[in-house]
Amino acid sequence: MTPEDALRGWLDAKRALVDQALDRFLPAGARAPAVISDAMRYSVFAGGKRLRPMLTLAAAEATADSAHLAADTATLAALPAACAIELIHTYSLVHDDLPAMDDDTLRRGRPTAHVVYGEGTAILSGDALLTEAFALLTREPRADAIAAIPAGELARRKLTAIETIADAAGAQGMVGGHALDLAAAQPGAAPLDEDGLREMHARKTGALLRASAVAGAVMAGAPADILDAVAAYGTHVGLAFQIVDDILDVEGASAVLGKTAGKDAAAGKPTYPALYGLDESRRRAETSMHRALEALAMAGIGGQLPAIARWVVARTH
Amino acid sequence: MTPEDALRGWLDAKRALVDQALDRFLPAGARAPAVISDAMRYSVFAGGKRLRPMLTLAAAEATADSAHLAADTATLAALPAACAIELIHTYSLVHDDLPAMDDDTLRRGRPTAHVVYGEGTAILSGDALLTEAFALLTREPRADAIAAIPAGELARRKLTAIETIADAAGAQGMVGGHALDLAAAQPGAAPLDEDGLREMHARKTGALLRASAVAGAVMAGAPADILDAVAAYGTHVGLAFQIVDDILDVEGASAVLGKTAGKDAAAGKPTYPALYGLDESRRRAETSMHRALEALAMAGIGGQLPAIARWVVARTH
Repeated sequence: MTPEDALRGWLDAKRALVDQALDRFLPAGARAPAVISDAMRYSVFAGGKRLRPMLTLAAAEATADSAHLAADTATLAALPAACAIELIHTYSLVHDDLPAMDDDTLRRGRPTAHVVYGEGTAILSGDALLTEAFALLTREPRADAIAAIPAGELARRKLTAIETIADAAGAQGMVGGHALDLAAAQPGAAPLDEDGLREMHARKTGALLRASAVAGAVMAGAPADILDAVAAYGTHVGLAFQIVDDILDVEGASAVLGKTAGKDAAAGKPTYPALYGLDESRRRAETSMHRALEALAMAGIGGQLPAIARWVVARTH
Repeated sequence: MTPEDALRGWLDAKRALVDQALDRFLPAGARAPAVISDAMRYSVFAGGKRLRPMLTLAAAEATADSAHLAADTATLAALPAACAIELIHTYSLVHDDLPAMDDDTLRRGRPTAHVVYGEGTAILSGDALLTEAFALLTREPRADAIAAIPAGELARRKLTAIETIADAAGAQGMVGGHALDLAAAQPGAAPLDEDGLREMHARKTGALLRASAVAGAVMAGAPADILDAVAAYGTHVGLAFQIVDDILDVEGASAVLGKTAGKDAAAGKPTYPALYGLDESRRRAETSMHRALEALAMAGIGGQLPAIARWVVARTH
């Protein structure tokens, strides 16, 4: 079996696990008004790649040994964080698609949330997804469900994971990156230079991808040096992901991407291909991937993390 | 000194404490892009009543004895939660004022965030405020700053406070209430009846007011029966607050309220005066206040909590 086949099987199994957990964790029935829980579920179950939760679960599995934990237990400990990060990613897409932001009507091949539910409810559903992510991170996993991790230690890990994720998702991270992106797209704004582009992407996409991997290792209980290696891995994978995203936007067709391709260029948005050309952009994505693999090799960890880094660069949508 | 004078002095001191802490806790300088941190600060320092953080600090102070903690230490322990709740309240106002929601251009006598910064940045600044609230709740207070509370116990209280606040702010609480409010205002929607109005308000305003008081008592370490009393107090104060808000919307002038008065009625929104008339609405607000006072008296706690309940009903803006 090639590493690609092994990854495919692993991804299928873990995606099913995440989807079941998301269904269990999201509010339903009498807990929340249907007008908001329906809109939340519409966007969460829109068929995404689930890249971020896959990074969380792969990092938990790959670092379980370093924390003297069984891989299955590490997966159980990290599953709520994996789901919470996907809720945060989903909310960011819902808000990013709004008319006041990117004004996208199509996402993953389906009408965007504001097209289906109206702008007001779409904004609120994003707010609810973000809030629910933090409720989930405190509530799950329950201490009595994971006997291998003492309750006090589990509480400490949860707080570290919440802080890691909140910092990556907020003003310093994802939201700050969105704001930079939005400001650069205003009429009359100076186009971003190389440093500006790198900062914008590091905040907008890189920070949460990095936090996805780190949160998995935190919940597994990895020691500091292993956490550092996972953070470095996540940083490089995040950059590679964004470069490939830019390349796909230039090359892709709407049918494959499931979103309006060529939109970034049409909006005058700064991209790697616009700054460096396609060939050099591809080289830079490869370089980032190799740095990610080196960080893992030096720390002696692996599991599915190397294959995920390769998938991120080889993906066509 | 009358209780009103005592409350006024207490509120002035605690508002200064909260404002200083908010300034310290909010991102500034190189930590976050100015384009987002400026917009966050604009809305946070817009001169609100700070009712929610006052409830948090008053509840911490009033329950400190029951937790064998000095009142000053309880205040210190609850201050980050007080600030986090104000960040969440502020984000909800920013999003509520958007054109796709209530479409308000004036708030607390100043142009709303989207008028000043544009819709996209206003949405993002709300997202950032919500996210920052949770980062703050995990980070502060630092264990080494509060020697009287063991680190493990402090971590446990933080997680309980985060869960309490997230549940109150999310799809089950505030955001769910906003969604119900929005749905009821759609053309052709059936007007809310008494039960519908009560549910909408309990979620939209009541849940976070209740959580504000509870979070203070949680951070102080109050025992379960005292927590229950504080929760009951918060529920009744929350209802009284909303009834008075509706009354003020009918009676108030723009100059006093600092927002467009009579707007709810003009938008065909359900209100207590519309459903019961002004006199009966005032009676109901008084009844809720008395129930709040009873809950405190039965648990033998007080401090500034009774005076705050009276202030909520007596306020003119």
